Amino acid sequence: MAKIAKKYLEVNPWIITEKGFHPERSRVSEAIFSLGNEYMGVRGYFDEGYGGDRLVGSYFNGIYSETDINHPIKFKGVPEIWHFMVSAVDWLYTRIELDGELLDLNQSKVSDFERTLDMKTGTLTRQFIWHTQSGKQLKITFTRFLSMTSVQVGFQRIVLEALNFSGPVQVTSALDFSPVHEEIHNRSYWTVEKTEHRGDFWFALGKTETVEQHLVSSFSLTADCEYVSKDIKDDKLFGTQLEISLEQGRMVTLDKRVCNHADKKRGSDGDSVWEAGVALAETFRELTFDAALAEHVEYWEKLWKRTDVVVEGDDADQQGIRFCIFQLHQTNHGQDPSSNVGAKGLTGEIYGGKTFWDTESYCLPFFIFNNPQAAKNMLMFRYNTLPQALRIAESRDCKGATYPMESLNGDDSCVVWWHGNLEIHINAAVIYGIEQYRRLCDDNDFFYDYGMEIILQVCRFYASRGNWRPDGFGFYGVMGPDEMHTFINNNCYTNTMAKKGFELALAEIEKMKAEMPEKLLKLTDKISLSSEELDEWRKIADKMIIPKDETTGLFEQHEGFFKLPHYDIDSISQEEIPIEHNWAQTRRYRYDMIKQPDVLLFLFLHSSEYSDAVKKINYEYYTPRCMHESSLSPSIHSILAAELGKHEEASAFYAYATRLDLDDYNRNTHQGLHMTSMAGAWLNVIYGFGGMRCDGDQLAFKPSMPKKWDSLSFRILYKGSTLCVKMDKKNITLSIDQDEPLAVEVFGKSIELTRQETSIPMPADRCA
Amino acid sequence: MAKIAKKYLEVNPWIITEKGFHPERSRVSEAIFSLGNEYMGVRGYFDEGYGGDRLVGSYFNGIYSETDINHPIKFKGVPEIWHFMVSAVDWLYTRIELDGELLDLNQSKVSDFERTLDMKTGTLTRQFIWHTQSGKQLKITFTRFLSMTSVQVGFQRIVLEALNFSGPVQVTSALDFSPVHEEIHNRSYWTVEKTEHRGDFWFALGKTETVEQHLVSSFSLTADCEYVSKDIKDDKLFGTQLEISLEQGRMVTLDKRVCNHADKKRGSDGDSVWEAGVALAETFRELTFDAALAEHVEYWEKLWKRTDVVVEGDDADQQGIRFCIFQLHQTNHGQDPSSNVGAKGLTGEIYGGKTFWDTESYCLPFFIFNNPQAAKNMLMFRYNTLPQALRIAESRDCKGATYPMESLNGDDSCVVWWHGNLEIHINAAVIYGIEQYRRLCDDNDFFYDYGMEIILQVCRFYASRGNWRPDGFGFYGVMGPDEMHTFINNNCYTNTMAKKGFELALAEIEKMKAEMPEKLLKLTDKISLSSEELDEWRKIADKMIIPKDETTGLFEQHEGFFKLPHYDIDSISQEEIPIEHNWAQTRRYRYDMIKQPDVLLFLFLHSSEYSDAVKKINYEYYTPRCMHESSLSPSIHSILAAELGKHEEASAFYAYATRLDLDDYNRNTHQGLHMTSMAGAWLNVIYGFGGMRCDGDQLAFKPSMPKKWDSLSFRILYKGSTLCVKMDKKNITLSIDQDEPLAVEVFGKSIELTRQETSIPMPADRCA
Repeated sequence: MAKIAKKYLEVNPWIITEKGFHPERSRVSEAIFSLGNEYMGVRGYFDEGYGGDRLVGSYFNGIYSETDINHPIKFKGVPEIWHFMVSAVDWLYTRIELDGELLDLNQSKVSDFERTLDMKTGTLTRQFIWHTQSGKQLKITFTRFLSMTSVQVGFQRIVLEALNFSGPVQVTSALDFSPVHEEIHNRSYWTVEKTEHRGDFWFALGKTETVEQHLVSSFSLTADCEYVSKDIKDDKLFGTQLEISLEQGRMVTLDKRVCNHADKKRGSDGDSVWEAGVALAETFRELTFDAALAEHVEYWEKLWKRTDVVVEGDDADQQGIRFCIFQLHQTNHGQDPSSNVGAKGLTGEIYGGKTFWDTESYCLPFFIFNNPQAAKNMLMFRYNTLPQALRIAESRDCKGATYPMESLNGDDSCVVWWHGNLEIHINAAVIYGIEQYRRLCDDNDFFYDYGMEIILQVCRFYASRGNWRPDGFGFYGVMGPDEMHTFINNNCYTNTMAKKGFELALAEIEKMKAEMPEKLLKLTDKISLSSEELDEWRKIADKMIIPKDETTGLFEQHEGFFKLPHYDIDSISQEEIPIEHNWAQTRRYRYDMIKQPDVLLFLFLHSSEYSDAVKKINYEYYTPRCMHESSLSPSIHSILAAELGKHEEASAFYAYATRLDLDDYNRNTHQGLHMTSMAGAWLNVIYGFGGMRCDGDQLAFKPSMPKKWDSLSFRILYKGSTLCVKMDKKNITLSIDQDEPLAVEVFGKSIELTRQETSIPMPADRCA
Repeated sequence: MAKIAKKYLEVNPWIITEKGFHPERSRVSEAIFSLGNEYMGVRGYFDEGYGGDRLVGSYFNGIYSETDINHPIKFKGVPEIWHFMVSAVDWLYTRIELDGELLDLNQSKVSDFERTLDMKTGTLTRQFIWHTQSGKQLKITFTRFLSMTSVQVGFQRIVLEALNFSGPVQVTSALDFSPVHEEIHNRSYWTVEKTEHRGDFWFALGKTETVEQHLVSSFSLTADCEYVSKDIKDDKLFGTQLEISLEQGRMVTLDKRVCNHADKKRGSDGDSVWEAGVALAETFRELTFDAALAEHVEYWEKLWKRTDVVVEGDDADQQGIRFCIFQLHQTNHGQDPSSNVGAKGLTGEIYGGKTFWDTESYCLPFFIFNNPQAAKNMLMFRYNTLPQALRIAESRDCKGATYPMESLNGDDSCVVWWHGNLEIHINAAVIYGIEQYRRLCDDNDFFYDYGMEIILQVCRFYASRGNWRPDGFGFYGVMGPDEMHTFINNNCYTNTMAKKGFELALAEIEKMKAEMPEKLLKLTDKISLSSEELDEWRKIADKMIIPKDETTGLFEQHEGFFKLPHYDIDSISQEEIPIEHNWAQTRRYRYDMIKQPDVLLFLFLHSSEYSDAVKKINYEYYTPRCMHESSLSPSIHSILAAELGKHEEASAFYAYATRLDLDDYNRNTHQGLHMTSMAGAWLNVIYGFGGMRCDGDQLAFKPSMPKKWDSLSFRILYKGSTLCVKMDKKNITLSIDQDEPLAVEVFGKSIELTRQETSIPMPADRCA
């Protein structure tokens, strides 16, 4: 747990600022200063090129390539194709030349460097003064944003100010398809099939290797000065070179409006994508930087108004949680149901842009409470990929549908098959998410039109994947969320969550029988569900084996866990951490230590069903055994600690949750942002200190205040209303923005909320 | 168990004959008609080339190449290099042309085809009459043998007889380095660096890719006729083309003497290998086919006299067991301690020529009783690769030495890391082998000079690999011989065998303290063995956890095995078998069925320590759960069944043991012969029906007679003496060939054997 911050950014509630360029943090900054709008994302790399260490990451949601996994031996049910989101066109491509010297912060002399991400407006600005070898001083300011309202559009503004000279400068602006995918062969996966300079527009059509998706990128330039230009082109680059005459003291502004049209269809037809891309660019012909920015800022203003979390008393925490919220919105704001939420969002290539089980278990709650459309889209991604989930189940000799542990397009793409094939708990998280979304967002249409089909096919999978023995039903040869134990039997988390899934399916079928028999008939016909299957499911739900010490209430993470040799995790040195990389592969599988919470997770997810006593004994048993080798781990511990009144532990586990990336605690932010951890940080604030629970009949709150905070306020969307929560060390105050009262629970008592604020005193034992 | 024979060979006690060419069995025949002499081996491919399906396999023990395994993700302790024995020079290369027609049994018309392997003399003969398109008839006879006395030397004789014409025939004879390794990229791994025709010799120097070992192959020709010749050469081939004038009715004989000098050294110096190869060839200048054959046949005669097993009453069984013995001798006859015994010997490329754990557990006993020098060499291979075993242990975060599950040169080369890293039981088999060899061959020098160092380093490994928990010591996250359960804890076989290893180490250290204190000091100094370690080992041996139902004596294969769901293996259809290939990869790991014996194996290996009652209850529990998906499986079941008087089961399990390859029961003989199964078949006869046990203080016999056999006789070497055993349904008769009497146990009673035959009546209940 002794992770150490690497601080270099200014602390400010709304702004992330890097003062002075930190080349040794070049990639970390690229990740932190990432911008995105779900449709596309760019790392905060330097527009003008950079000869130092950098990763030009420009990503489009769902645009990828694939490669053979080349397993030394092939096995049935083990995927053979690896998918990876490719770095696409660098549409910010710029080169600036003065007196024959090319601007490159790795070589050039610069002063007054400042890079600023304004989270309120979703804009990135970078400025510095370039001191050329010829003695000239040119102040340059780059600004970029990716429109949240017209998601195919991105803008770049370059402002040039000659401080001590007048004369020509060469600026090259282009579309560059040469950025590489470092992890897989360190090369570009694009072919540029066509380019054209037509009127004000430069167009380029790129095609991804193997998957053969097409992307039309285009740009137009506006400058408030005279220039001469000539087009430039090579096999992966197309654009223009301007010669601009600068006058001392006069600022010149060059705006680049980019329109990207990415077609996710496999093997799409280049000609028709080209035509659609050209037509789309035309529709934005009149859109100026300022007009687009105004719309963009307005969008963010509204979003912040609805979803801000305000922490008083600690600016670093305030900045941290806002950064998490900002990045989550950038990754998904509900614009396309075929988007997924990758583990690193659109901020890096590691994990291949793929979505994992934590999409539902960690990210979905954030969107449920902050952007229901985005939440719905995440579940539509699962529905849309149900055909693949059915195929995966079949490939593993099972019935029904099982979702892939790691996927970009719905296919299983997990190279570590002993995770991918065994972590069947992902399906239970999908069911949990569907049920949560339905209940919290009041969306029964989605539930019965799409959700139930997923739920039934997953139950069918579970019934075929599990086995009976005399004392009940269970799952054998699985892996729980705690990936430090593999090929285990009757994992508590998996069995509990699956049991809940069966119970939900059966209850909803009864409900449909009574309330919508025709819909039920259509559904059961569609998937050929028999009453024998339902009888079997009833038995399964009833007889699911959940290993547990009945006298103490201590769950056994899986059968045999209590008999594993004990390892004192405090004896593990810093050099050994993460043991996932520093220990021999098989060594970590043999002790009673865990990577991340497994029992604690279902105690949290189904919080209302477990007593404080049960939570306490399990928390106290598993916490000292937890290595937290997943960034998802501390938040769950913090939430449980807060609930149990272990305030110091709650704060300690929270310590870096919101600033994991800003302060690079894990030393791998350069690879991209930990998107699901950011969702975990939000959970940590809202469920931890906010003490919110949503698994019962009513929303419930049992807040607590960390010592260093003066107050915490947040808003969430709940069944169409906005719920405002404010708390300090004296009171918790709640209100809603609708006329109809809403019943919630605070400290175990039911309270009717109205537009009027209701205050409840904060008990002394809930403050650290 | 319902495996079905595919018979096409003649049944004869000493001869394997294929009458008429069976092209659809081309590769099966290549494997069955393999010849070898430990140093090298050749499949029974056609000397003259063949356009049909074939695998030109010409192998040299320890000559290999390597390739990156290309794991999608690298893990610590998981090997990254895959080694594979490469097909080397085809030194039998021959092409025959008549009237412009090239002989090729895939195209040409032939009659009277007969291929004959004479196991008594170790020679392969093939003859047929070629009917050319021009109407000519040429009778051709090929004979080959690989000298058992001059192992670098192989001979080929071609006899040509023009039946209805006189005229010229073209015969090409060469050294061809172009044979491919099919499994890895289907190409040759050789570069020919130098060729020379010097006097009577043609020489070629080849080098393997990556490993850069060198091989000098050379040949000379002798013909009893006139001919003209010209040399031929391409980048991988060197030789000569003869034009011979045939006369109707006169046989022409062409002898090719080949001398191969293979240097196993990695990155050997081509020039010096060349010189050594040239010099070696010179030493055989005067060796004729007939003289070499005479020596070779004499060698085999002596070998058979010492090691034959005679079965009366069933010629197919007789032929089968002789074939096993013949092939085992061909694979290893004690000529080089750096040779290993590959799973397929030198008869195919599958398994890469590598040695596995069954080398000690299955093959070693055969050599102990039939060729002690060969047995010693197998253990010297382990001693010589101890440095690698130490490195492997270190790479897995352990101390001491652990042997690789799959190895060609001592390095771990197992691509399925969840086998290679987890099957630590291999080390216990090495210890068991060392102890058996010492005791049965009376070789204390080897034991104390080499064996003990291995034993101590393995114990050290086990001590660091295992863990303590309150009730004792055990191994967690392992795999037993039964590979249908992985990442299991306290596998009975592994724990029992390791416990025995510790006990042996400790007892021998005490013995050395008393009898050879200086040697002990030198050894403990060499490996820095401390008394604290020995104290720890004592505790480990004492407190080793062996899961067992104390009331019934039923061992639990590993902790939790009894709680696994039951699978009725009789419900598995033929199409599903082998489930290793037909079931989804993770499916086979979740039931109470096993691949091969695991508990039964240690009950057999330490037979004297377990009562019949314990053997019976375990046999009856595990046998109906065993899939026998290893060819090593039925023999152990048969041995236990015979011991327990379950004669019908013993015969049923034995049914195909000796003819697994001759009748291609597993349908994969084309890949090469199942060398360790052949050793298993020998065990099945000697330990099963012979009822021999050698783990107690005395050799013990408790024979039984299968219904269809009239008698069984065998000879074994035991402590320098030859022990003759004959049995029929009336008596078992034993004698030795030395003056000093030898005490053995027969049916539980100690008996003194002498040169005089001793007969003991066979109890009625020991005959089926």
